[in-house]
This record gives sequence, C-alpha cells and structure tokens, in this order.
Amino acid sequence: MKIYIEPIGKLINEFSKLPGVGAKTAQRFAYKVVNMTNEEANAFADAIINVKKNVKYCKICGNFSENEVCDICERRSNSTICVVKEPKDVIAIEKLNEFNGVYHVLHGTISPLDGIGPNDINVKSLLARISAGGVEEVIMATNPDVEGEATAMYITNLVKPLGIKVTRLAHGIPIGTDIEYADEVSLARAFVDRKTL
Amino acid sequence: MKIYIEPIGKLINEFSKLPGVGAKTAQRFAYKVVNMTNEEANAFADAIINVKKNVKYCKICGNFSENEVCDICERRSNSTICVVKEPKDVIAIEKLNEFNGVYHVLHGTISPLDGIGPNDINVKSLLARISAGGVEEVIMATNPDVEGEATAMYITNLVKPLGIKVTRLAHGIPIGTDIEYADEVSLARAFVDRKTL
Repeated sequence: MKIYIEPIGKLINEFSKLPGVGAKTAQRFAYKVVNMTNEEANAFADAIINVKKNVKYCKICGNFSENEVCDICERRSNSTICVVKEPKDVIAIEKLNEFNGVYHVLHGTISPLDGIGPNDINVKSLLARISAGGVEEVIMATNPDVEGEATAMYITNLVKPLGIKVTRLAHGIPIGTDIEYADEVSLARAFVDRKTL
Repeated sequence: MKIYIEPIGKLINEFSKLPGVGAKTAQRFAYKVVNMTNEEANAFADAIINVKKNVKYCKICGNFSENEVCDICERRSNSTICVVKEPKDVIAIEKLNEFNGVYHVLHGTISPLDGIGPNDINVKSLLARISAGGVEEVIMATNPDVEGEATAMYITNLVKPLGIKVTRLAHGIPIGTDIEYADEVSLARAFVDRKTL
C-alpha cells in the first residue's frame, strides 16, 4: 500500500527534485506546507509561478532580469566587464560591494568532456559588446577549475587582440588559512603569483 | 541596492521559511526553479496548492486524509489503537509493515511549560473511540521524552480504568549500538526493563 496520501506524496516528490533534498527532508518540507495557512501556501505557490513568468535574461549581459535590460547594465558604465559562469556568481560578487562595473554571464564553461564547446556558452555577445566600444577591461572571474581556466584562456585569446586589457582574479592562499593547512594547489599558485613588496 | 531581482528574492524568502533552510540553500532552490521548465514549475506550485486543498484530518484518528475517514481507519480493525504524537510518526510505523492496527494522532503532547494542557491535544476523541467498543489494546507510542512520557501516563490513567490493556513501546539500547557507546539514559532503562530469557 502507499504510505503517503496522494497530495502529500506528490508534494514530497516535487520537493525531492530540489538539489540536496532527500526523502526525509522532502517529507519535513511537505509537512511544513500542510501546516501553513492557505495564504502562506498560496504565496509560496505564487512565488514559484512568478519566478517562471517574470524572470528573463538581460539581453546585454545574460544575467537574470525582470526587464529586457537588467538594472546593472542599465545604470553602470560598461568600461569594465566581469565575466562569470553563472548568475549566482554575480550575486556573490555584488555582495562584496567592491565592484562597480558590469557583468557578462556565460551560462556555462567550455567542457569538451560534457560536449560543451565555445558556441554553447554566451561568448559571441561578449565580443559584440566589446566591438560596440567603451570597454577598457575584461575581468575573467570564471571558477579556478579546469573548465574555468580553459574558458578564461579561450576568451582571453579572443579579446586581447582587440586591444582590451584582460585580467584574471588572483588565486592563492585564502585569507585566514594557515599555510600548514592550505591545499597544495593554492599554495603552489601562491608561490608562482607572489607579489613584490 | 537590492541584490536579487524581485521575483527571485521573493522565492528565496519563501524557501527560507522551510525548516532547516538558510539563505544559501534557499538561493540554490530558487535557482533550480528558475531553470525548471514551465510545466515543472507549474506542477510544483500545483502540488503545494493541492496539499492545502485536499488534505483534511481523518475524523476518527486525526491523521492526514483525503477523505472524511482515512484509508487506515476505513480498512483495519480497531481492536488495537496506536497513539502517536504526529502524522509523521504514523508514516515511520507504517514503513515497518509490522503493525496492522489503527492509529490515533494526538497532534501534540502535554507540555505545561509551553501552555499545552490535556485539552489542547486530541485525547477526548480517543476516549470516545474506546467507549464505542471493540478496542482491546492501546499502544502508547509517544516520544520517549518528558512530554511524551507525561502524555503516555496521563492517557494510561484515563484508559486503564475502562478495562483496556495499555502498553508502551519498549525503550532500551538501540539494535546495533555497542554498549560502550549507548547513551546513559537508554542503558539505565535497558537495565530496569531487562527481560527474563
């Protein structure tokens, strides 16, 4: 016999599609919803539907946006473009309140093993932005993994010949880490990229 | 400035109301929804609304049910009633495939510190079920904590005088635990409740 009644079973099934959510957690979430008021549950369901209805991609940078062009592209100078893999990287950088330029979201990185080539990520529009003029620096902020490095190299080779300054986020020992415990790759990188004081 | 665009911010806010979900996890969930197809997102939203619309409480046992009377009360003999705190305890016991009786869900345990008295939990209907006849045994399966024990005692004192057998789930060392690592309370309880072989 089925253990859950149908509406609860279905909701548990939906919740377990979320990343990192197993059967037990999905059950807790579903029971939480059962105990919500009707208004709370409706607000929850509406939020899900509204996200699908109202979230578009900015036609300039490719980040999530409510409008054709996102707030950041609308308001900031495009002299510095920070290239990231995903929209959540934009959030991480925006939280710093350090960077005042615009972004370019690739929606992926080149990964031949997964069949993702240069044409499968949002590169062409980056070149179009640069051709349109005004860009002085492109900061490569892809992840420091094989795919991220390869993508950074690929884009660098395309952008540098256009006379644009291309930079890469610094890699090294994270602040607050003892050298003793730093991972070997970061430590080796910190040696290679050491700075003159 | 706000970091998230409004629809995403709202959905993150909704997800972070779920138990154990912090800002970072809520963001991951929201991004997952953004990347769902429209059909998937609609199915998710519908599941939430349907749970509120179609989940009632069984008028006999108080468990979640799609109908007036739940499947379990409908189909099984009421000679043995297992009294539990919450609907999720029913699920845990049903998964065993060991118990063939019916349940009674208290929706709470007596907890004077939280202002929950005997009248705030689903006890009266239990007595009504017993008065209606046919009940031979009541198994107290409330949690082995202070509130659960107090509630079990309270109900026992009401039910036993009616000539009904009242039992309590056994407590002791969990199967698979080394005695060395068993918690002291369970170990002490295992001594008190030791069985003659």
